[in-house]
Amino acid sequence: MNATATATEQIISPSQLLAHWQGHRSLTRRVIEAFPEKEFFEYSIGGMRTASQLVLELLAIGAPAMKAIVERDEKPYTEAGNALTTKALFLQQWDADTDAINTYFAQVPTEDFGKTFNLFGQYNSPIIHSILYFIDNEIHHRGQLYVYLRGLGVEPPFFWER
Amino acid sequence: MNATATATEQIISPSQLLAHWQGHRSLTRRVIEAFPEKEFFEYSIGGMRTASQLVLELLAIGAPAMKAIVERDEKPYTEAGNALTTKALFLQQWDADTDAINTYFAQVPTEDFGKTFNLFGQYNSPIIHSILYFIDNEIHHRGQLYVYLRGLGVEPPFFWER
Repeated sequence: MNATATATEQIISPSQLLAHWQGHRSLTRRVIEAFPEKEFFEYSIGGMRTASQLVLELLAIGAPAMKAIVERDEKPYTEAGNALTTKALFLQQWDADTDAINTYFAQVPTEDFGKTFNLFGQYNSPIIHSILYFIDNEIHHRGQLYVYLRGLGVEPPFFWER
Repeated sequence: MNATATATEQIISPSQLLAHWQGHRSLTRRVIEAFPEKEFFEYSIGGMRTASQLVLELLAIGAPAMKAIVERDEKPYTEAGNALTTKALFLQQWDADTDAINTYFAQVPTEDFGKTFNLFGQYNSPIIHSILYFIDNEIHHRGQLYVYLRGLGVEPPFFWER
């Protein structure tokens, strides 16, 4: 690495990272909307989880994980189960979590991003690494949902529109 | 946002971002390796590009884009065309680009990440946004390659191993 790059010379602020994540979440919301209702719950490829199951994972991470980080609560990972029975209910939860993520993210002091927390009682790493993982994991599964949409003959939203 | 989060209080250093990207590139390399030779060039779902075509896009961005950023060269985006005819040639290029990315990334002064550059003569944005886009775009297409592998009955590498 560049000898001038030290730990004190950094390139992304918390507010920029939050805006980056919420931009991705806005795109993921449009991908959910693009699914036909039935196929959202039933279609998959190669034995993978359905779109609804993949989105349940994203919902189990984003807002609950930020709440857990703020409260330093190591309670285990849990998915919502069978409560979300329609796309509309998924979208309603998605929007509630958008607000919750904004609220909890703002409660992480800048100096805490480098601190270690044992998320869900099993992922012990710096908070910044956990948050980058949430974003990466969402992009990863959303990329899979793009293939599902193509497999269903549905045009997905443009990747670069946030 | 938190009133304490200003532009000067930041959370990711250049070396951390490079390590994050190269961790993803290491996983993408293993996804390329996991494809059967023939299907890497021929298989797709729903009219999408083949794995080899998607990886040509990633190769056209990573190292060439970092070189263009360092040299402030706005030359247009171009893919390698038909030179890479085997998986082994793709992997060879991937490894060469790993070194090139390390070299060029280290030549971006920390204070330049916030500066604007018109990448490929058409994407005019802060350099940090371009680099985050490269990583996100790679995760997105690699997520699609996971579905291709599942569609082919091949177990992909674990997403969380870098």
